[in-house]
Amino acid sequence: MIQSQLAATRVEHDLIGDLDIPAEAYWGVHTLRAKHNFDITGTQLSGNPYLIRALARVKQAAARANYELGLLSAERAAAIDAACERIVAGELHEQFIIDPIQGGAGTSTNMNANEVIANLALEIMGHAKGEYQYLHPNDHVNLSQSTNDAYPTAVNIATHFATQPLLEAMEVLQDSCLAKAEEFRTVVKMGRTQLQDAVPMTVGQEFGGWAVTLGEDRARLAESLSLVTEINLGATAIGTGLNAPAGYAASACRHLRELTGLPLTTSPDLIEATSDVGAFVHLSGVLKRVALKISKICNDLRLLSSGPRAGLNDLHLPAVQSGSSIMPGKVNPVIPEVVNQIAYQVVGHDLTVTMAAEGGQLQLNAFEPVIAHSIGLSLKHLTNGCLTLATRCIDGITVDEDALRRAVENSIGLVTALNPRLGYSASTAIAMEALHTGRGVAELVLERGLLSAEELNELLSPERLANLSD
Amino acid sequence: MIQSQLAATRVEHDLIGDLDIPAEAYWGVHTLRAKHNFDITGTQLSGNPYLIRALARVKQAAARANYELGLLSAERAAAIDAACERIVAGELHEQFIIDPIQGGAGTSTNMNANEVIANLALEIMGHAKGEYQYLHPNDHVNLSQSTNDAYPTAVNIATHFATQPLLEAMEVLQDSCLAKAEEFRTVVKMGRTQLQDAVPMTVGQEFGGWAVTLGEDRARLAESLSLVTEINLGATAIGTGLNAPAGYAASACRHLRELTGLPLTTSPDLIEATSDVGAFVHLSGVLKRVALKISKICNDLRLLSSGPRAGLNDLHLPAVQSGSSIMPGKVNPVIPEVVNQIAYQVVGHDLTVTMAAEGGQLQLNAFEPVIAHSIGLSLKHLTNGCLTLATRCIDGITVDEDALRRAVENSIGLVTALNPRLGYSASTAIAMEALHTGRGVAELVLERGLLSAEELNELLSPERLANLSD
Amino acid sequence: MIQSQLAATRVEHDLIGDLDIPAEAYWGVHTLRAKHNFDITGTQLSGNPYLIRALARVKQAAARANYELGLLSAERAAAIDAACERIVAGELHEQFIIDPIQGGAGTSTNMNANEVIANLALEIMGHAKGEYQYLHPNDHVNLSQSTNDAYPTAVNIATHFATQPLLEAMEVLQDSCLAKAEEFRTVVKMGRTQLQDAVPMTVGQEFGGWAVTLGEDRARLAESLSLVTEINLGATAIGTGLNAPAGYAASACRHLRELTGLPLTTSPDLIEATSDVGAFVHLSGVLKRVALKISKICNDLRLLSSGPRAGLNDLHLPAVQSGSSIMPGKVNPVIPEVVNQIAYQVVGHDLTVTMAAEGGQLQLNAFEPVIAHSIGLSLKHLTNGCLTLATRCIDGITVDEDALRRAVENSIGLVTALNPRLGYSASTAIAMEALHTGRGVAELVLERGLLSAEELNELLSPERLANLSD
Amino acid sequence: MIQSQLAATRVEHDLIGDLDIPAEAYWGVHTLRAKHNFDITGTQLSGNPYLIRALARVKQAAARANYELGLLSAERAAAIDAACERIVAGELHEQFIIDPIQGGAGTSTNMNANEVIANLALEIMGHAKGEYQYLHPNDHVNLSQSTNDAYPTAVNIATHFATQPLLEAMEVLQDSCLAKAEEFRTVVKMGRTQLQDAVPMTVGQEFGGWAVTLGEDRARLAESLSLVTEINLGATAIGTGLNAPAGYAASACRHLRELTGLPLTTSPDLIEATSDVGAFVHLSGVLKRVALKISKICNDLRLLSSGPRAGLNDLHLPAVQSGSSIMPGKVNPVIPEVVNQIAYQVVGHDLTVTMAAEGGQLQLNAFEPVIAHSIGLSLKHLTNGCLTLATRCIDGITVDEDALRRAVENSIGLVTALNPRLGYSASTAIAMEALHTGRGVAELVLERGLLSAEELNELLSPERLANLSD
Repeated sequence: MIQSQLAATRVEHDLIGDLDIPAEAYWGVHTLRAKHNFDITGTQLSGNPYLIRALARVKQAAARANYELGLLSAERAAAIDAACERIVAGELHEQFIIDPIQGGAGTSTNMNANEVIANLALEIMGHAKGEYQYLHPNDHVNLSQSTNDAYPTAVNIATHFATQPLLEAMEVLQDSCLAKAEEFRTVVKMGRTQLQDAVPMTVGQEFGGWAVTLGEDRARLAESLSLVTEINLGATAIGTGLNAPAGYAASACRHLRELTGLPLTTSPDLIEATSDVGAFVHLSGVLKRVALKISKICNDLRLLSSGPRAGLNDLHLPAVQSGSSIMPGKVNPVIPEVVNQIAYQVVGHDLTVTMAAEGGQLQLNAFEPVIAHSIGLSLKHLTNGCLTLATRCIDGITVDEDALRRAVENSIGLVTALNPRLGYSASTAIAMEALHTGRGVAELVLERGLLSAEELNELLSPERLANLSD
Repeated sequence: MIQSQLAATRVEHDLIGDLDIPAEAYWGVHTLRAKHNFDITGTQLSGNPYLIRALARVKQAAARANYELGLLSAERAAAIDAACERIVAGELHEQFIIDPIQGGAGTSTNMNANEVIANLALEIMGHAKGEYQYLHPNDHVNLSQSTNDAYPTAVNIATHFATQPLLEAMEVLQDSCLAKAEEFRTVVKMGRTQLQDAVPMTVGQEFGGWAVTLGEDRARLAESLSLVTEINLGATAIGTGLNAPAGYAASACRHLRELTGLPLTTSPDLIEATSDVGAFVHLSGVLKRVALKISKICNDLRLLSSGPRAGLNDLHLPAVQSGSSIMPGKVNPVIPEVVNQIAYQVVGHDLTVTMAAEGGQLQLNAFEPVIAHSIGLSLKHLTNGCLTLATRCIDGITVDEDALRRAVENSIGLVTALNPRLGYSASTAIAMEALHTGRGVAELVLERGLLSAEELNELLSPERLANLSD
Repeated sequence: MIQSQLAATRVEHDLIGDLDIPAEAYWGVHTLRAKHNFDITGTQLSGNPYLIRALARVKQAAARANYELGLLSAERAAAIDAACERIVAGELHEQFIIDPIQGGAGTSTNMNANEVIANLALEIMGHAKGEYQYLHPNDHVNLSQSTNDAYPTAVNIATHFATQPLLEAMEVLQDSCLAKAEEFRTVVKMGRTQLQDAVPMTVGQEFGGWAVTLGEDRARLAESLSLVTEINLGATAIGTGLNAPAGYAASACRHLRELTGLPLTTSPDLIEATSDVGAFVHLSGVLKRVALKISKICNDLRLLSSGPRAGLNDLHLPAVQSGSSIMPGKVNPVIPEVVNQIAYQVVGHDLTVTMAAEGGQLQLNAFEPVIAHSIGLSLKHLTNGCLTLATRCIDGITVDEDALRRAVENSIGLVTALNPRLGYSASTAIAMEALHTGRGVAELVLERGLLSAEELNELLSPERLANLSD
Repeated sequence: MIQSQLAATRVEHDLIGDLDIPAEAYWGVHTLRAKHNFDITGTQLSGNPYLIRALARVKQAAARANYELGLLSAERAAAIDAACERIVAGELHEQFIIDPIQGGAGTSTNMNANEVIANLALEIMGHAKGEYQYLHPNDHVNLSQSTNDAYPTAVNIATHFATQPLLEAMEVLQDSCLAKAEEFRTVVKMGRTQLQDAVPMTVGQEFGGWAVTLGEDRARLAESLSLVTEINLGATAIGTGLNAPAGYAASACRHLRELTGLPLTTSPDLIEATSDVGAFVHLSGVLKRVALKISKICNDLRLLSSGPRAGLNDLHLPAVQSGSSIMPGKVNPVIPEVVNQIAYQVVGHDLTVTMAAEGGQLQLNAFEPVIAHSIGLSLKHLTNGCLTLATRCIDGITVDEDALRRAVENSIGLVTALNPRLGYSASTAIAMEALHTGRGVAELVLERGLLSAEELNELLSPERLANLSD
């Protein structure tokens, strides 16, 4: 029993003292301290595979640069390289056990990576875990690095990769809108400003506008990624590059570029780059914009599908679940509603990023973990939200073309379209009569013989109303 | 020419050097430095009479306490007292010339008050402005005080008084809602959840709910004022009361209580009170809640008045201006729209307060000026917004009772109300037929002879539907 | 194989059609639809046991009221009651599988509860899961309820219970501060305003101020809970109580009061209560205030422990992990840093709540799920943060009393304390000499014979400086 | 008396009825209605000359296009053109009397412009104000326009011009930082991460980093202006261009491009452009980023100048006013403090913009007035803040080179720099001794003979420490 206990742990040491580490753990003493210190969310770094893979890539690039510069033996470099490759491939993610919300400016995350990589590399070299005399988490895996350059570089790379699914999901959503824009190209409906009936348009134009707005946001988001391709690897502690050898920054950046396929460059001012989190503020701001646009689309979808009787009832959203246990037949716009809530979260996360950014002091921003976490959540939730909105709502939307046409003919706003033909005074008289009698403008125009049915049809044609010929 | 220039200015001195002060100015060198240093908004402290009157009251109370404790001569105390009284009465507000957004934790505002009061008191004593040997802004007007207690105390008092008009305006708005609740007590309409037709209710219930929500917010707001009646006068620089004589804090608080009529108390921990701005965070949070509630009411008003044809059209808002130059007869919900925008401002101001509060350090929060300014704007805009909403919108709202009734009878949601009488299966069958044929539930029920017209009327009576008997 | 598949599922039906439900699942078709519809965060309702227990209590209270009013048979009521009791005791939480971020205003959460309770009750009654003819999720478990009253009531109760650990954690933190206030009661240090040396105080006063501020916030937080004890159970769909029998609201509230031990009351205006989320806005605002205060304390801790040489170095925080791989011996304020980040999250969550509250429309706020989720996260993270801060930081703080004393004696600010004794002109002269020579004020005063060592000691005594006698 | 009254007013008419307009007023009935309706802030549109000039340019371009297309007579076009030119030159701004916070999506602002321009043009034509039969605010000045295209286009142009002073002010601030970077190029100081002493750097590097960060933000801000050069003029009410003649959009855009000198283009999707405020969300997000960066610089300035004794005391900020009435000689960082507060305002304004953007519905965002107002304030305050910070703070900063050098030599962090030379174990031993004895690392190294004074000097040279040779 005592023997098995002895066998089940190894002892590791740091400046505070000794700790028993489970023998099977790839992480070590620094990870365990941090695990104890930060017990906040109940979640672990392993929930963010983008970050784990990016950390592995940074360590791999550093090892290659250190080998190239003669600082690391071929054997150690190869072992670190292989270990990182396996982590990128998905192994050992469960060994990243620290809470993503942590103090220390990412030191614990960096040490978790250093320890897991070191122990995996030790095994690859034929040693036991913990035999750091052969390969050390700090002296070899972290060689020529500081948390203050390795961690932000990894966060940048993780963010870049985590943004790709969102860009794709936004394209899916945009395509769904485009398909509906085509499907409803000639369906005439009332346009509304300030929630008041305004002038006619087509349903296709409405969906087309959403597609355009999503396309613009994709462009802004893709643009903003250029800011995170500028990295500070080689800065070490504060950007002076102290204790990193000449040539290291350039070599590490080159290797990282090759390993990730991203167009990474070394920041021209590493002092500035090491304390600055402006790229994340910018990206988070763009995500907020994306969220606001999608929220506005969802607000419109809910408005336009209000009813079915005492509402706008322009659009019919597909029923994806029962709406109410107490009200038979009620179907609610649950998909737009969940996406609205995602948007509210993204706006909240942006404020968290804002405050964390403002809190940076002197040569470092200590709050990058919550920045990375918040942006990671925003990216993930928005990605899921866009796909859900496209596939479970937009794709199934239908309209009642005749009812929409009747609403246009019955509207007062139609007068604006007839104005150039009938003249202002006749138009106004008809509008007033329609208002007071509750009758439709089209009906009155025909009754008075002001226009023939053919003429009216022409004036109300989708082509003219929605200016489709443009 | 030289003579007139000499006559036109006096020279004042501070640790930086000499400055020419216009002879007619009641402010002095400290005010002028601050005027030069802070040129941000283009506005002046004089725009906030609540703050100016509160500063005068604080100085008056301090003078009375200092006199009482033998620190100030009768003549000086009387002159300061008289000067403060005249400022409270509205004189010399234009002498408060500094930008409300200022560094120095309110020192400049405090010195502006000290200088104006000193010079007015000097004139009252028969001396010329600037003859500080007789009565000094610091040594006498500011005696036993620091900016760090005098200024926060004044801000507390100003905030208390500036909140009163808002409480009254909210009551006006609440009364307007109550009047409409009574007017529309028996008007039946469709209630809606998630923008989908739900079950019937009365228009009176809707307005009544708004009245209740406003009443609750008035209660929360009034409650929150209790936090600002705790003052730190007597704390001096950091709350240790250094250089304030024994008994001063109690005496000054007593005088201030008498002068203002507010139930002021001295904070039990002056160290904490001097650095803490929690009362403002709380108050600003409550103002945000007020704003959100009023914004929700405005959102509802805009929704409920949407149309007039292709919308909900439950309510008719009074026309207060033309809606559009291009669309004849269009009337927009401009009053709710402006109030929504006030709400968005208040939420923004709350964030400014939040960040300023978080930025406090050690023994003081240096950012109280922007806190005071933001809360002041929120109070003013909300006050104007409530009055505008009441008098230019709510009071003039009308409904078309018959149309609302028809909408209920035509709705599917009516089935829920008939459910207990007809049974679930008959109800569902009618709902389905209504959905597919576009006909109304009431019509189908009568046609099938499931209910007589009398029975239907009884089931659809406002009393039953809206549970008015409760 | 086909047989085992048949055996492994049961078929359930809703208005959309049939779904295969795993035979072992206690949840049913509505839960599964929602599971498919809302795939956003990768987490489940089961992560919030407070909410699950509260839902069970609501269903239990409703069953008792329904039985009391003769609407539910004794057998069914007993089975529901027993099922709820077992869920409260911790069983079947893993059956709450829906994403906490969901559309439908909580309908899916409510249905998840209805289905799990129904199937557990069926088993208790000796039936198989899915034999809803004996006990139905809607007709019996949800009897006399709507999501729109059952769900908000459950969220209120969950919030009340989830706030208790935070109140306790804040007390732990307050006690830690009080213990340090006592420990450092007579340790003199420089007070600072606007980061500039001001006048002396004691370290005990600083910690005492934090204890006071935490105590005030506990009071505000406890107060705010009174708002969530007002529930809308009995409102059904929109607050009119349609289809809930007379006496139901009162009975259900009474049972819920007994079951939870909370002083619950039924809202006097159920229309208002059903659409209003003001209690959460208020509570979230108070949580923001709590977060800001704690963040300010952490900012101060980090400032006061800056150094160890080129910083303020007033306090020594305990080392809880290594600070840097590259800088030997560096120890960082990781605990305050993680708590700062929690505060930034809470401020962000408050904004999410703000936007969700503003988005409510007409008779319901559809966004209560994200409100509940955000407040739940804030409560959990703050609770963990307070405990972490108390036990891993505050409790281990030490000071160097001599060094702090030397800093006071060496300061210019000391002059302010000597002012009343030496007079203003002598004080100023000494201050100037100290500034220009870099020497200490105490040293100069002694050298010039202005005070004896004893007199100086007396003036610098903690009792006098910190006004301890007050 | 009656005569003079008659002479003193003219009567104008709208759909609500008649109003007396002061004879000397250039504004008319629509302006006066709006003046009455919106009494919120106590300020007027005239406070924003950028907007007034931009409105005049839009009307001028529209008149030229309408003339070109044969819709407007030469005489009227010329009169409108001349009137607009005079308004651009600064005339009649005081005639823009409406509150900037207004409902109606800018209709009132647009009508204020239409009326002032019409009446000025009437006078130019030799008619009296109000003789609209000769030239009408709607029929001629607003011809081919709607508020929904004219107003957003004007806001875009106003924003573009109002951003220029900020770009220039940021350059001034950047240049001030660059000058200090050069001045302090070789002054060695301690770098700090997480407020703990880290490794040496130069003061020049710190200022240089700020200059870089400001330069990046200028680039982002300039970039973001490209979004506001896309305009929707020609969209009319909802983007369908209803009632605007063929060729109008292109012609009006061309004229506006010539008149403003801005690279304006017509949005490719006018439906989207008319409801979208994404450009302002983006710009406001960038302004928030600018504010956060500048706030961080101010936070650093306040930290680095903390003291003068019990603080970091790296930098000496120039004294611009007395710091305290009660503490002789105290000088506070009032300029950074006021700039921090501006930053907090900008963050608050961004949230106002965020909420207003999310509130847009269907074919229009009704809340653009508060968006324009908030961004206008942010631009103005940031511009003033940057100039103030540069000229009243940064430019006057001095350092004590010897004291900074001593702090480095006395630091523990110095060990990191000696590490590569002395080896890890010797370094650690020295660090420990320094920590326990309170002595300096440099002193110990020399005492132990580990390095000569020359070698130490070389290792501590600014060139090596700050990597200046890079």
